[in-house]
Amino acid sequence: METDTIAAISTPLGEGGIAVIRVSGPDAIAIADKIYQGKVKLSDVPTHTVHYGHIVHPETGERVDEVLVTVMRAPRTFTREDVVEISCHGGMVPVQATLEALLLSGARLAEPGEFTKRAFLNGRIDLSQAEAVIDLIRAKTDQAAKMAIQQAEGRLSRMIRRLRNDIVETLAHLAVNVDYPEYDAEELTSQFLEKRCKEILQEIDRLLQTARQGRILREGIATVIVGRPNVGKSSLMNTLTQENKAIVTDIPGTTRDVIEEYVNVRGIPLRLLDTAGIRETEDVVERIGVERSRQALAQADLVLLVLNHAEPLTDDDRKLIRLLKDYTKVVIVNKVDLPKKIDLDEVRSLIGDAPLITTSIKEEKGIDQLEEAIARLFYLGKMEIADQTYVSNTRHIHLLNQARQSVQEVLSGIEAGMPLDMVEIDLKNAWQYLGEVIGEAVAEDLIDQIFSQFCLGK
Amino acid sequence: METDTIAAISTPLGEGGIAVIRVSGPDAIAIADKIYQGKVKLSDVPTHTVHYGHIVHPETGERVDEVLVTVMRAPRTFTREDVVEISCHGGMVPVQATLEALLLSGARLAEPGEFTKRAFLNGRIDLSQAEAVIDLIRAKTDQAAKMAIQQAEGRLSRMIRRLRNDIVETLAHLAVNVDYPEYDAEELTSQFLEKRCKEILQEIDRLLQTARQGRILREGIATVIVGRPNVGKSSLMNTLTQENKAIVTDIPGTTRDVIEEYVNVRGIPLRLLDTAGIRETEDVVERIGVERSRQALAQADLVLLVLNHAEPLTDDDRKLIRLLKDYTKVVIVNKVDLPKKIDLDEVRSLIGDAPLITTSIKEEKGIDQLEEAIARLFYLGKMEIADQTYVSNTRHIHLLNQARQSVQEVLSGIEAGMPLDMVEIDLKNAWQYLGEVIGEAVAEDLIDQIFSQFCLGK
Repeated sequence: METDTIAAISTPLGEGGIAVIRVSGPDAIAIADKIYQGKVKLSDVPTHTVHYGHIVHPETGERVDEVLVTVMRAPRTFTREDVVEISCHGGMVPVQATLEALLLSGARLAEPGEFTKRAFLNGRIDLSQAEAVIDLIRAKTDQAAKMAIQQAEGRLSRMIRRLRNDIVETLAHLAVNVDYPEYDAEELTSQFLEKRCKEILQEIDRLLQTARQGRILREGIATVIVGRPNVGKSSLMNTLTQENKAIVTDIPGTTRDVIEEYVNVRGIPLRLLDTAGIRETEDVVERIGVERSRQALAQADLVLLVLNHAEPLTDDDRKLIRLLKDYTKVVIVNKVDLPKKIDLDEVRSLIGDAPLITTSIKEEKGIDQLEEAIARLFYLGKMEIADQTYVSNTRHIHLLNQARQSVQEVLSGIEAGMPLDMVEIDLKNAWQYLGEVIGEAVAEDLIDQIFSQFCLGK
Repeated sequence: METDTIAAISTPLGEGGIAVIRVSGPDAIAIADKIYQGKVKLSDVPTHTVHYGHIVHPETGERVDEVLVTVMRAPRTFTREDVVEISCHGGMVPVQATLEALLLSGARLAEPGEFTKRAFLNGRIDLSQAEAVIDLIRAKTDQAAKMAIQQAEGRLSRMIRRLRNDIVETLAHLAVNVDYPEYDAEELTSQFLEKRCKEILQEIDRLLQTARQGRILREGIATVIVGRPNVGKSSLMNTLTQENKAIVTDIPGTTRDVIEEYVNVRGIPLRLLDTAGIRETEDVVERIGVERSRQALAQADLVLLVLNHAEPLTDDDRKLIRLLKDYTKVVIVNKVDLPKKIDLDEVRSLIGDAPLITTSIKEEKGIDQLEEAIARLFYLGKMEIADQTYVSNTRHIHLLNQARQSVQEVLSGIEAGMPLDMVEIDLKNAWQYLGEVIGEAVAEDLIDQIFSQFCLGK
């Protein structure tokens, strides 16, 4: 258990109205008292109360900022430790000066994710809930946020616990019969075990079936728009982003190779990649060359290929179609408002069974059909968060697959007539893998790795 | 008086641990209650208390975020209205969803600065204190922040009020004698008036004398490093920024034409301009041409011209020196570690009385002398915030100058033997100008203009 007191700026950096510094640990209130000047002593105030005052520099005694200080005593706090939150004026200098004052008075600068890590270590939340907190912060779509909220509330945790409980009960039954084989016929035990394992397998499968949809809801469908210059890529993008609520994710402070933009098409979150490139110039493919197109495409779940209705198919078009052979794609023949010069039969023969939509983005024709095609392509219809538990985290999916594999081995073992104390090991492994989802029996370095993904101050 | 309830995200946008939404107005608590789900009803809780719970969407009833809600009832709040602060998980989506829930439940999106404006309109702070809040948020150096804190505490306001009080007393004395000239000899009144006005003038002058230093403390000395390629500009910059605590001000979300960096040289804040250009390439002058150099120089308070000790003076050097004729500058002859080829006498004859320092930045020689020269140039020595009131805001300086002018006209009027009821008008004007500093008798459009400089959520 950690015993020192940590502090960090918990709001994003930048100029804003408010910035919040969070302090957590056994000395949080005492340390805050050293630099707080107000009508009260913070150590004397009731828990969960807010106090106006000033922060003074512990050495010079100079006033550093005018603040509101919130005192929250353990255990009813985010970390289950004593927590003090200092709400400063939102400039860089006063906030940093306040943090400095705290560090001079005995607090240690928190590592990224350390507050949430303490919440986990102190048992307030389990690992899958902690991971949901990161997901919530990073969520780029409403659905991703909803899914994260459900996970943060412990939905997935409850499912996992129920599964583990089933396994423990089965193991107990098994243990009785391994130790006292005379107590029950081995044959009967095998039958019981097989039945229970099949039920458990079904439950795991049900969870894993949500994984594809969960991943899409969480991350969006990585979508790339390609096409020769002047076919209308940038108009298509503008139409998609304007008609659908878009969240631009070019967040200051985060570095990305490609600029992304999220749009919500019939409830399906598309993550449009390399939008900056398209916005900048119509000549993306020509300018950046096939090599970089390949790079952008490497991440794509969905490609929107735009062709020109008013021009014959060119070699560049054919090259692009070949390049996209193995992609999930929609082919858009744009500019139907202009006289037809393209050979649609040739297009159809080249693109295989990919949907082909004719549009005039300029005249807003065919957009509905395009959106419909995208929705159908993902077999999702209106993709609402149903009242069900989704698995979306790669680590969880991996562990569930391992648990599934272990249960499968139990079943193969029974079928092969292996002794029950041998198959017991596989069942214990399944229990172990499921435990790792919620952070039970997880190695410390994995915990460190998970929490280091957090931003500072969380 | 405003009577609706406003809401805005008060923390900078971006991924962070916490984001805070502020709600202020008569319905703040009732509106928050509509979307808050917790153990308590917010309308029932004591003021200045914090409550854990969830925000639910007012239409779908779906949970949007897990939050801490702070309830603060009027008048002990920032705006003197009822205030609710909702502390969300710091992602874009949950925060925006929570704001949306508030707006759906009857709050209006606040305009930039509207919270502070209400604090002003409701009489919690005066205009110069409100302006100090912007200064504090924008402060880039410790000194600027300290100065802003002092002003926010009302130091300048108290000075201005005292001055206005003196003027009112003088006006009262004057009124008695204008209405009842027989009550006092006009001659005596003139003498009294002259004496008081000279005292007031002295006070105003004392404030105005702090303006230059105040402006420097607030904004830093705009400094440009110029010189031919490869004379060591970028090394000089690195030395200055590494040796002195630097605050990079390339804050996400603010747009600037030039990237700035702040360094603290012997207590004097230098604001290094166009540092990106210098960092990028040594060839700034050549690359960007004289025209753009002129633009960067147009803002400069101080120019550091770097020449090469190991090369004869070139025409480019001479051109630069001519360009800098009227600038406050330090001439740095760098690379004294290499054999001398420059004609220092020619340099001296060209640069007038500007200080000339020889350095080897590579071998860390001459840096002390350079810093000394900069400090001496600004006659400031160690520029500490003395225990004195600074005027740093251009609006305040302008108003103080106008007040000064009015008092001066009173004195000229007396000297010219003008009737007292004529000079009275000028004295009233002085009183009026001083009032505008603290926001008394200020036109509404000016107030709007001042508060619109704030960031959203303040």
